[in-house]
Amino acid sequence: MSFDALWADLAPVGRLPSGGYRRFAWTPADLALREWFAAAALVRGLELVEDRAGNQWAWWGTPSADEPGVVAGSHLDSVPDGGAFDGPLGIVSAFCAVDALRGKGFVPSRPIGVVNFADEEGARFGIACAGSRLLTGRLTPERALALRDNDGVTMAEALRAARREDPAPDPEALDRVDTFVELHVEQGRGLVDLGAPIGVGTAIWPHGRWRVELVGEANHAGTTRLADRHDPMLDYARLVLAARDAAERQGAVATCGKVRVEPNGVNAIPSRVTAWVDARAPRADAVRRVVASLGAPAAEESWTDETEFDRPLRERVAAVLGHPPELGTGAGHDAGVLAGEGIPTAMLFVRNPTGVSHSPAEFAEHADCLAGVAALTAVLHDLAQ
Amino acid sequence: MSFDALWADLAPVGRLPSGGYRRFAWTPADLALREWFAAAALVRGLELVEDRAGNQWAWWGTPSADEPGVVAGSHLDSVPDGGAFDGPLGIVSAFCAVDALRGKGFVPSRPIGVVNFADEEGARFGIACAGSRLLTGRLTPERALALRDNDGVTMAEALRAARREDPAPDPEALDRVDTFVELHVEQGRGLVDLGAPIGVGTAIWPHGRWRVELVGEANHAGTTRLADRHDPMLDYARLVLAARDAAERQGAVATCGKVRVEPNGVNAIPSRVTAWVDARAPRADAVRRVVASLGAPAAEESWTDETEFDRPLRERVAAVLGHPPELGTGAGHDAGVLAGEGIPTAMLFVRNPTGVSHSPAEFAEHADCLAGVAALTAVLHDLAQ
Repeated sequence: MSFDALWADLAPVGRLPSGGYRRFAWTPADLALREWFAAAALVRGLELVEDRAGNQWAWWGTPSADEPGVVAGSHLDSVPDGGAFDGPLGIVSAFCAVDALRGKGFVPSRPIGVVNFADEEGARFGIACAGSRLLTGRLTPERALALRDNDGVTMAEALRAARREDPAPDPEALDRVDTFVELHVEQGRGLVDLGAPIGVGTAIWPHGRWRVELVGEANHAGTTRLADRHDPMLDYARLVLAARDAAERQGAVATCGKVRVEPNGVNAIPSRVTAWVDARAPRADAVRRVVASLGAPAAEESWTDETEFDRPLRERVAAVLGHPPELGTGAGHDAGVLAGEGIPTAMLFVRNPTGVSHSPAEFAEHADCLAGVAALTAVLHDLAQ
Repeated sequence: MSFDALWADLAPVGRLPSGGYRRFAWTPADLALREWFAAAALVRGLELVEDRAGNQWAWWGTPSADEPGVVAGSHLDSVPDGGAFDGPLGIVSAFCAVDALRGKGFVPSRPIGVVNFADEEGARFGIACAGSRLLTGRLTPERALALRDNDGVTMAEALRAARREDPAPDPEALDRVDTFVELHVEQGRGLVDLGAPIGVGTAIWPHGRWRVELVGEANHAGTTRLADRHDPMLDYARLVLAARDAAERQGAVATCGKVRVEPNGVNAIPSRVTAWVDARAPRADAVRRVVASLGAPAAEESWTDETEFDRPLRERVAAVLGHPPELGTGAGHDAGVLAGEGIPTAMLFVRNPTGVSHSPAEFAEHADCLAGVAALTAVLHDLAQ
């Protein structure tokens, strides 16, 4: 089955009238995506396994701890109103690579797998890479099961409704993985500016989230003189601009995407503004300097140190592909979680002509998608020859 | 009954654990306040009338269009988590003034009334001075009845639950008013800075509300380079600071108290930020210049021109009180609505030692409250002698 046919099969699942996607973990849309994965495995005669953390694996050959395999894949779930490429492109490309290798009569020296990591975006329960983190034990089942979605449904209830057992770490499933390669649409303009269809990932930037409480004094918007005000919205405005300025100076990115205002009334000076800041950079000290520049104490809500992808594997992949551009990324990925477990891991990026992601406007040219398939095919060929 | 006893009777109604008040129109707390008003009228032998717009009047004597009366009063409802003084001080003081006049054996030459205007704050249905605006016809019953509170309850439903008929303009009720005097706690620091317990209102500043739509482009907070972003939160931050700067330059006040962010996610560059700006100044052109300084098109949601209180009445009141300070206010009041109908109207302000209002911290010293009663008593004596 061709790239186009696999892509066309996926296209309607969870699509909104806007053209964007809402494919949240363990919803009917996600279950339809998992059925699609299972069908793609079965039609190829691959062995379908669901690990104890809920991730799907399709194996060509039979891996074991003694003979672990080379795995490609990504995820099928989406952010709210997300794009078609973030996740699915890696899985469709992996199936197409298997098809291409078989079409050439290639006989792998070790098993080759395709993986669909569950709940990567964390859009429903708030924890990104939940499937790979549960698999590795980085996220405990106790914590995961108690997470609630916006409707108050716990992950435990969602899994039961999807007829799943409680998740658990699955070291045996992890032991079957020798090497992992995740192909992903680029979520920025690195490749388009370089004029290259494909790039190799070097590292996932250190990144974190901080919360800042800006406390003022509620008062009447009409009668309180400017000099008498303690207006935390002014502090918030300065924080937003300070975060941007510091990010520019530090070569970082910083985003104030979420804010909560109390009481949030048109004619009331706010009593409190709660700001959230997401900051990322190629180096942790740059992120720390951005956070220190906010002008107010910031409580760390999450922190992930830099994840550098395995250097020998990167060099091998780069050599196979004729040394395309190498680039880091500010986005988290399941590849980062597996790399954190010491599994040699690489990422391939496919050019994004606008750089837009997590949006219905996310896009990759058809020719670049096919270049991605060819690159992944070459890499798997090299790693399993 | 003394000021203290009336005040103590009111204190527990609608009081929150914070010490603030939640006395929204036509809720059980408001109905308890209306019962308190009725009891205060009846115990004094005043004639209790509820007009067709839901405002309560307690008359000493029998007013008519031919012999209209002098009225004092204010409102009993509150903003969310509001203070004890904004509104109730004017009504308690009016009852105390009636008691004081009677205690002196004063025989008024024309009727004296005490009024409780309904739904002044607009905290529940969003329209301030709803009772006086319905009374005068400035707010149509059709529009009012369709307003919804945060629970989706319409004013029509709330009135039915409170066993009230649909409201209507009531020109006969208005014709019974010759002159209106509203005593109110000051909502700023004008009097405390001047060292005066009592002031006389000159005008209600022109004021309005504007909405600004700041549209950007949703994108990934980790991977989108700063240069590639269209982040409306930055525009919002600049707008907040521009509004403040312009207000300082123009001698105005401007408040960004309410904001809506979409999608309001920590790791998402917003696609849209909706800002609301409340701006007021002693002169309309100053307000207009603040709004023109926002750097983005602003849609006018409401506009109220300057309301100057009747100059002969102000001069008479000032003379009776020994020429206390005169001051304008940025807050709207029922006194402004009645003045807009051509009824001679005056306001007395009672010193607020912190200037804080619309907050549990709102306060007036006991001695200043009694000075307010004495001032109102003198004014009513003069107007009805």
